[in-house]
Amino acid sequence: MNAFNITEYMQALGLQAKAASALMARADAATKNTALKALARRLREAGAPLAQANERDVARATAAGLAAPLVDRLKLSQKTIDTVALGCEQLAAMPDVIGEIIGMKQQPSGIRVGQMRVPIGVFGMIYESRPNVTIEAASLAIKSGNAAILRGGSEAIESNKALAQLVSESLAEAGLPVDAVQLVQTTDREAVGQLIAMPAFVDVIIPRGGKGLIERISREAKVPVIKHLDGNCHVYVDDTAPLEMAVRVVDNAKTQKYSPCNAAEGLLVAASIADAFLPEIGAVFGAKGVQMRCDPVAARILRAEAALHPEMDVTDAVEADWSEEYLAAVISIKVVEGVDEAIAHINRYSSHHTDAIITRDHLNAQRFLREVDSASVMVNASTRFADGFEFGLGAEIGISTDKFHARGPVGIEGLTSLKYVVLGQGETRS
Amino acid sequence: MNAFNITEYMQALGLQAKAASALMARADAATKNTALKALARRLREAGAPLAQANERDVARATAAGLAAPLVDRLKLSQKTIDTVALGCEQLAAMPDVIGEIIGMKQQPSGIRVGQMRVPIGVFGMIYESRPNVTIEAASLAIKSGNAAILRGGSEAIESNKALAQLVSESLAEAGLPVDAVQLVQTTDREAVGQLIAMPAFVDVIIPRGGKGLIERISREAKVPVIKHLDGNCHVYVDDTAPLEMAVRVVDNAKTQKYSPCNAAEGLLVAASIADAFLPEIGAVFGAKGVQMRCDPVAARILRAEAALHPEMDVTDAVEADWSEEYLAAVISIKVVEGVDEAIAHINRYSSHHTDAIITRDHLNAQRFLREVDSASVMVNASTRFADGFEFGLGAEIGISTDKFHARGPVGIEGLTSLKYVVLGQGETRS
Repeated sequence: MNAFNITEYMQALGLQAKAASALMARADAATKNTALKALARRLREAGAPLAQANERDVARATAAGLAAPLVDRLKLSQKTIDTVALGCEQLAAMPDVIGEIIGMKQQPSGIRVGQMRVPIGVFGMIYESRPNVTIEAASLAIKSGNAAILRGGSEAIESNKALAQLVSESLAEAGLPVDAVQLVQTTDREAVGQLIAMPAFVDVIIPRGGKGLIERISREAKVPVIKHLDGNCHVYVDDTAPLEMAVRVVDNAKTQKYSPCNAAEGLLVAASIADAFLPEIGAVFGAKGVQMRCDPVAARILRAEAALHPEMDVTDAVEADWSEEYLAAVISIKVVEGVDEAIAHINRYSSHHTDAIITRDHLNAQRFLREVDSASVMVNASTRFADGFEFGLGAEIGISTDKFHARGPVGIEGLTSLKYVVLGQGETRS
Repeated sequence: MNAFNITEYMQALGLQAKAASALMARADAATKNTALKALARRLREAGAPLAQANERDVARATAAGLAAPLVDRLKLSQKTIDTVALGCEQLAAMPDVIGEIIGMKQQPSGIRVGQMRVPIGVFGMIYESRPNVTIEAASLAIKSGNAAILRGGSEAIESNKALAQLVSESLAEAGLPVDAVQLVQTTDREAVGQLIAMPAFVDVIIPRGGKGLIERISREAKVPVIKHLDGNCHVYVDDTAPLEMAVRVVDNAKTQKYSPCNAAEGLLVAASIADAFLPEIGAVFGAKGVQMRCDPVAARILRAEAALHPEMDVTDAVEADWSEEYLAAVISIKVVEGVDEAIAHINRYSSHHTDAIITRDHLNAQRFLREVDSASVMVNASTRFADGFEFGLGAEIGISTDKFHARGPVGIEGLTSLKYVVLGQGETRS
């Protein structure tokens, strides 16, 4: 009985989303921007009803004994609300990419052929706890001319409903279909299974959350999924790396923040520079309490240094360390022959997310860029830059470690497709 | 026992392809072009061994009672060999897109961010009868720096083996890995099931063949599939269409060739022009023996005309006609109010392949281009132009009616992905 209802409910959301997506695809830039600005205004003016909905979620989560960091993620502070409202205004100020025509060229037959950027249709977003994702996803849908079906975490359902109400009002105010952004109103877990298996209505799924959730969604989805599972990112310090730069970038890549997927988890060091470089970075990591899991060569160099810096935590790496995404004050360290071994190690163990080389050597830099098979490859920059905003995309839908469609940080264009446009004057084929 | 062997065999092909793909990704343009030119030469010089292999396939097919058109498709005439050899040389002469860097821009942090085009990795090609597809797929793999696993039709196995041998020799001659192009050497049907379900080794599947085969592959594949199922293409003759141009383009779109997926299957005519246009196109279709399956309004106009042209074949359309891909001398005809009804009809019934409007009206042309949700949309040109060569792509891997990754005719770029490249001078994130 329940299963029957949830199927019907999700199919109805899908049908409504598909209908709304045709209207959204046709909407002009000004209308979409009006909706985004209205949403920013309504968020700022939301006041008590939104705050009370959020308090109910927080109270329920606290009573259920949810861990403090998870309860924190649930909270919609005034600062969070201001941030997402500003995000809507920034999106409104961005140029509209829908309808842009690229590469229009005349062909020998006389026809002119180019490609027009159009919305992909309907995306499904599956996420956990943080209610602000509801607004991020809604605003991306509006700007990109897509329809969206949003499935937030059950612990944030009251907040999400209140936010979705503001989205509906903003769409209506601009004359856009309210079904362009629909929140799944039930916390029934089966809703996710339905959402990812409606190819007739949903064109792409974007999951945000734990690895287990994303793996399950990827395995079971009947439509494409934009996702990354792991961020096992590396920095390789090449023979000719300027020492000061190498220390600064490796430190930043590892310690500026431990939890993001673009933080470094592995450090590779060319043998010729290891004696000079490792003691310096070892002292930095020692001072910051970063545990170093080392291959035998790195361990020998660092243990010698640890005599001077007793706070240094040097342990022996095991095979599993090379694949590990710690998301913590831990880093694996390995001394390699040079750029060849570094590239081979990265292509074997990295999660194809983001990897960087520190070098002065132009040829090694070029080889690293070309041969490392990752979504983002960097020369002399911190892996922490792998981010839609830092890359100048203006918005980030997610990060993809797949090669099909979108790769790396995904901006609005990841929610669009290019269709061919042919302009003729009555040409026929012979 | 047999199932176990085929799994091991296909996994081995996959592993070898993956290893070869890393070397192919690194190969420079000159080396790949050397292999392509060697392949062209070896094809032209192949002589008796290739001809005899092909004769064995043809004899076996004839003995098995295969229909004459299918036997014809199997035949490798000298003309066919010259055509595919020329194709290899044309690919060799094309610019290499691998390694191209686009959109490099400096960001506020100081880093420069762009995207580098790289091969997608390994593609699997599944096709029927025509052995020349073996060379087309092999040459595309070489030029795009990918590895390929080719699964041809069992009826062409001897020809395909002989051709694959020439490919191997050409790869070796250029110093490229012979595993870059592997032909599945068994006709075991289970090989297809294995090939489409090896996400660890195969990045994308490109099927060519009947709708049933493609549907099955799409349903069961564990990796992305570049495909189209149907080509139910339309021409809409708008109120202001120049009559002579409309007749010429509609005639070409329907009758220039009946079998291609980009031939028109449906004709929509604005009510205001129907009385002038339909008798003219009706006379053309009558003379060429094209059956017209008409809605009541079109049927009334055309039946009046049929009094003068008794060769005209006018019948009443049923609902199923609007969705039909005839691939034959048949066309469905419907009179519509105007551009709105035409767009609605196409978005409901077309296969999202290729649809065209004939008009002088700029606003209607713009609306048609923007709102018709098809891979190729055209103004005043024959749908028959929807083709990789006519679109200037230099090669055609297939046509996609999906919106994810590649859409419309797919050239070499459809076998590539863009990775982000970041060039810094020691920047760190704050």
